[in-house]
Amino acid sequence: MERALDFWFDFSSPYSYIASEWVGALAARHGRRVRWHAILLGVTFQAAELKSPVSHPLKREYSLRDFPRSARCEGLPYCMPAVFPQPTQNAARIFWWLHDTRGSEAAEAWAHAGLRAVFTRGITLSEPQALRALAQAEGLDADACERVWNDPQWKARLKQANDEAIAAGVFGAPFFVVDGEPFWGNDRKPQIERWLASGPF
Amino acid sequence: MERALDFWFDFSSPYSYIASEWVGALAARHGRRVRWHAILLGVTFQAAELKSPVSHPLKREYSLRDFPRSARCEGLPYCMPAVFPQPTQNAARIFWWLHDTRGSEAAEAWAHAGLRAVFTRGITLSEPQALRALAQAEGLDADACERVWNDPQWKARLKQANDEAIAAGVFGAPFFVVDGEPFWGNDRKPQIERWLASGPF
Repeated sequence: MERALDFWFDFSSPYSYIASEWVGALAARHGRRVRWHAILLGVTFQAAELKSPVSHPLKREYSLRDFPRSARCEGLPYCMPAVFPQPTQNAARIFWWLHDTRGSEAAEAWAHAGLRAVFTRGITLSEPQALRALAQAEGLDADACERVWNDPQWKARLKQANDEAIAAGVFGAPFFVVDGEPFWGNDRKPQIERWLASGPF
Repeated sequence: MERALDFWFDFSSPYSYIASEWVGALAARHGRRVRWHAILLGVTFQAAELKSPVSHPLKREYSLRDFPRSARCEGLPYCMPAVFPQPTQNAARIFWWLHDTRGSEAAEAWAHAGLRAVFTRGITLSEPQALRALAQAEGLDADACERVWNDPQWKARLKQANDEAIAAGVFGAPFFVVDGEPFWGNDRKPQIERWLASGPF
């Protein structure tokens, strides 16, 4: 079986969106698969006593310029969502429901759909109608999805994912662990590629 | 005259040390010169309501692992200084004194000497004896340097540099501005190189 690398993301994270578009191909080129983990950045920020980059004077203006520039560097479309950052627990609960009931490929397809909805069409996933419409467009049952995001079982599943992320040292997103080595940020792509190509350095 | 790019650094910043070792050659390859600016990260952190990465739970452990790894990626020696972060106002005042009285090349040589002292030999620049010894090793008059770092004129000069950095949007280090475009972090090297090679993207 192919060895996996772990990839944590939040549906509201611009750099997670960018990384989500390269992580699969990069891993595959080196014979790896990717284990995707939807988490809530707000929870890891709290654990690490951090705030969103756009909550800081000076860093806010820079970040709003760097998000689209970093997307352009990867040749990706990008738009700044109307609501940013936005609460993403409902989309993340659907991710874990798909993951646990239909498998990792279904969850990964949902991750792509959600991240692209936010960062190429500016959609607000915390609006129930928008999330239902996205689910339906992805071939899911919107009523079932709404039951999932209100269900204590899937709330607990997301909480478990957040707890596991913090236990693994995750404080931001995207975050990667490859053979036990942690890498934080879309900009660690060259280091991850080097590690995958030639091992520890 | 060659167009310049601006480069802000703090003598106590690991990523500034790494960037200081590539910025000159990178700029030169593209027909640019570098304007070096010694600043105090503590001042820009305060303006941006930020703290050192090592002040945050989880991020601290990651950063202590990422500093040497990022240095290895550039083929650079690295050691974690005994005192980190360390106050660097005295070294920075000497930088501006050299800059204003002997020119930018003398200041740049001092920047390299200070950054390498901290990150390849673990020296504490806030210890007067260590800083005097470094000045002497660099061919400077240690007594003159000590007078400089206690002199209100050079204290004011560093304060001016910090104020100018904040006015330019600098909130961390290394920080670069190329043709008006801001880049933050050692990991923005590929974007800076792309900009220098082929212009805005």
